Amino acid sequence: MAAPETFELLCQHAREAALLDSVAYLLEWDERTLMPHAAGPYRAEQFTLLSALAHQRQTDPRIGEWLQELSDSPLAADPHSDTGATIRELRRKYHKKTKLPQSLVEELARTAILGQQAWDDARRKNDFGSFRPLLEKTIDLKKQQAECLGYEECRYDALLDDYEPAETTSNVARVLAGLREELVPLVAEIAASKRRPKHELLTRRYPEEQQRVFGTEMGKRIGFDFNRGRLDVTVHPFCSTMGPHDCRITTRYHENQFPSAFFGILHEAGHGIYEQGLRPEQFGLPPGEAISLGIHESQSRMWENLVGRSRAFWEHSYPGAQRAFPEALGGVPLDDFYFAINDVRPSLIRVEADEATYNLHILVRFELEQALINDDLPVADLPGAWNEKYRGYLGIEPPDDTQGVLQDIHWSAGLVGYFATYSLGNLYAAQFFQTAQRQLGDLHAMFRRGEFAPLREWLRTNIHEHGRRYTAAQLVQRITGRPLGHADLMADLRGKFAPLYGL
Amino acid sequence: MAAPETFELLCQHAREAALLDSVAYLLEWDERTLMPHAAGPYRAEQFTLLSALAHQRQTDPRIGEWLQELSDSPLAADPHSDTGATIRELRRKYHKKTKLPQSLVEELARTAILGQQAWDDARRKNDFGSFRPLLEKTIDLKKQQAECLGYEECRYDALLDDYEPAETTSNVARVLAGLREELVPLVAEIAASKRRPKHELLTRRYPEEQQRVFGTEMGKRIGFDFNRGRLDVTVHPFCSTMGPHDCRITTRYHENQFPSAFFGILHEAGHGIYEQGLRPEQFGLPPGEAISLGIHESQSRMWENLVGRSRAFWEHSYPGAQRAFPEALGGVPLDDFYFAINDVRPSLIRVEADEATYNLHILVRFELEQALINDDLPVADLPGAWNEKYRGYLGIEPPDDTQGVLQDIHWSAGLVGYFATYSLGNLYAAQFFQTAQRQLGDLHAMFRRGEFAPLREWLRTNIHEHGRRYTAAQLVQRITGRPLGHADLMADLRGKFAPLYGL
Repeated sequence: MAAPETFELLCQHAREAALLDSVAYLLEWDERTLMPHAAGPYRAEQFTLLSALAHQRQTDPRIGEWLQELSDSPLAADPHSDTGATIRELRRKYHKKTKLPQSLVEELARTAILGQQAWDDARRKNDFGSFRPLLEKTIDLKKQQAECLGYEECRYDALLDDYEPAETTSNVARVLAGLREELVPLVAEIAASKRRPKHELLTRRYPEEQQRVFGTEMGKRIGFDFNRGRLDVTVHPFCSTMGPHDCRITTRYHENQFPSAFFGILHEAGHGIYEQGLRPEQFGLPPGEAISLGIHESQSRMWENLVGRSRAFWEHSYPGAQRAFPEALGGVPLDDFYFAINDVRPSLIRVEADEATYNLHILVRFELEQALINDDLPVADLPGAWNEKYRGYLGIEPPDDTQGVLQDIHWSAGLVGYFATYSLGNLYAAQFFQTAQRQLGDLHAMFRRGEFAPLREWLRTNIHEHGRRYTAAQLVQRITGRPLGHADLMADLRGKFAPLYGL
Repeated sequence: MAAPETFELLCQHAREAALLDSVAYLLEWDERTLMPHAAGPYRAEQFTLLSALAHQRQTDPRIGEWLQELSDSPLAADPHSDTGATIRELRRKYHKKTKLPQSLVEELARTAILGQQAWDDARRKNDFGSFRPLLEKTIDLKKQQAECLGYEECRYDALLDDYEPAETTSNVARVLAGLREELVPLVAEIAASKRRPKHELLTRRYPEEQQRVFGTEMGKRIGFDFNRGRLDVTVHPFCSTMGPHDCRITTRYHENQFPSAFFGILHEAGHGIYEQGLRPEQFGLPPGEAISLGIHESQSRMWENLVGRSRAFWEHSYPGAQRAFPEALGGVPLDDFYFAINDVRPSLIRVEADEATYNLHILVRFELEQALINDDLPVADLPGAWNEKYRGYLGIEPPDDTQGVLQDIHWSAGLVGYFATYSLGNLYAAQFFQTAQRQLGDLHAMFRRGEFAPLREWLRTNIHEHGRRYTAAQLVQRITGRPLGHADLMADLRGKFAPLYGL
């Protein structure tokens, strides 16, 4: 067969697999937002059937034959062209799907379910010991997975690759270590400062319906397209895409807590703007897919933190917020509000951490999971190692494992190699933002005028619409002219917090 | 293979097909309630893929072999046992799916899409002529479909069977003709009465949120289980089931119109209570499926009309309605409200018709579509025949075809044989209700005390939990001790409207 025809068959097949996936995403979205509780078990059966159908398609041996045929074709010659990226990424995906023995895949799935149950139980009873055997099993299986997938430098590379394709442990470790060197002292300086925001402002009464209306309005303004998406309510917010014009974000409202829903909406809208910026005609193919979790997170963190927690953003938006919440904010000066939403304080729980300390929570996890996978740390020693790192990086220590090593679901679910992407997101975001600022002019001046389109369009043309034509590292180099580093993020953090805390 | 094993394979296969269907129902429900508008074309692709997968399964030749093997087995001996009904109904379904040539199925599907477009256009332009060629083609294809499926007495039997399995045209015609003989004069008497309800009461301001709360509360009270279902908003209300514990109903609210949403909720909740009354463990198999559209409609009409429009229901519910809508109903006596929700007047549009005249709208359609299918009426003569029947049965004549023969989507979509099930629903409901009343005692006295559980449980044990073990006719005979007739419905209508209109 001629290469263009083979390529067409390959793409058609991939689009069909994406169709099945998209249906599964709708099932999941519905389960998490609306489904009657009693419907759970049947929903699980629906998932199982769809997964089986998707697995059949993804491991269809014809894919291997088509890829083989196309490997020397001119369509594959430029790895950054749409066709080249399609062939490269589908090959990567096919290999990932076919390299693991079915028995290992099933064992991983089973252990993830048991692991989450054991974790949930252990966390409630503050009993790491009862979770330990399953975590040991999980780590063991993840090592086997890494061995099956193969790696160049270290086992952890193979796991990281699931979330941050083509990234290496050594490179991430280098950047995060650089960040740590400067961030730990900055956080210590802030902790020692006598200045404190009036945190109480944010726990006044913010009626749910006004939160929804104001959050929706601001989501719209930064550019989430509600004609191609929705905002709904869930316990754990997320962003999910179930078609080229169907991206749905969620949040949860607490009447006595302003930041949670509002910054949650900006965060998920940031993910959504990325998804909506992908080329619809490439939907289901690599040039129409997001690059990595880290790059995805860079988009959500940018809108949440670099835009949404900037003073300029609120110079534009604060009058609207005061109109929406006259009771809570009517008499509150902008500066007090701005300081309150930028409250930095070392704390124990990652998901409640602020913009600065958040990265230290990630560092702890990134370093520990590397040690676990690379046989440098036995699971039995994990709680002690955890507490030691919290002391070292954040200057505080968990009183128990529930508030320590047992707080996150990730490891229990087999998600090892995932945590780093949260901090990579912050790092990418800062470096992209700095470049956008250099190229577009004063972004904060634009925010003050309510102009978010220039930044959004810059992100779309520089990042979104390329899909997976570049790896994350290639994209960063291409856009910013240098490899990922920690300098821009540190400059942002110090630039924001030094004046607030009088450092 | 031993019969029990074959039976197990057959059931497992049917349950898998039901799983795929249930996913398609979620896609459809989502499309009609929540999906962003721009997502339509991709949703159509998702449907197409699922339909293809479902079709593959439903026409799998192994089904024919299994059924063949089971035909003489003891499992099939009692046609009303769960196993016997399963074998009988799956055979019926398999034959229906495999008897039609693929080319005819595709032609029907294509013509339905074109037909609906042409109908939509013709209705807007009041131009029957532009729709005529597609309606001719549709009628021609439906005749071919009937010939392929086979029938005993007349072609129309084969089409009716799609909606009201095992029912015959001659039987339905007999019952509806009997109804017509008595209903036409009753409606004429009412039309001639000088008494008129104060219709304006129902077009006052009924705030949407209160409508939702009050409707939800009453839906709950009659027994729709919100732990296993939901109520949402759509343009065209419906009830859809996507799992044994996931039944969803919808309605639409008009602030200046009380009955539309409220009785819509009772109607759809009636459908939902039927679905929720089916045995969950039989989900996906005939003993866990509703019998027919007519029986389904009997459940919705019973709760909407025989319960919801009774004076006893409102003796219980009216104080709550007045609290929910103090502005609209605060000073309105119950009798005025009760008369207003039972306003009978001959009108042109079926979907807006009252409880009494509704059946005359159906008679017109039932008689005309029989004539079309049995070659007694050319499509060209349809508008004239339509208008003549409206004059004869309702005493009014459409001023144009938009308000006449072009008002319903059904024929344009290839739904021929469907209309009768609406009136069958009213007839079944009245006869069931009369029997329940005989067996349970004074149902209206119970409604006055807010007790709906006795009727609901009677419906569940007599109808719902049998699934498809009986045909509709068998069920009616079994429960009420006689075949379907028009006497109970006429008695209900005359019993309600004679005092209201002083006949």
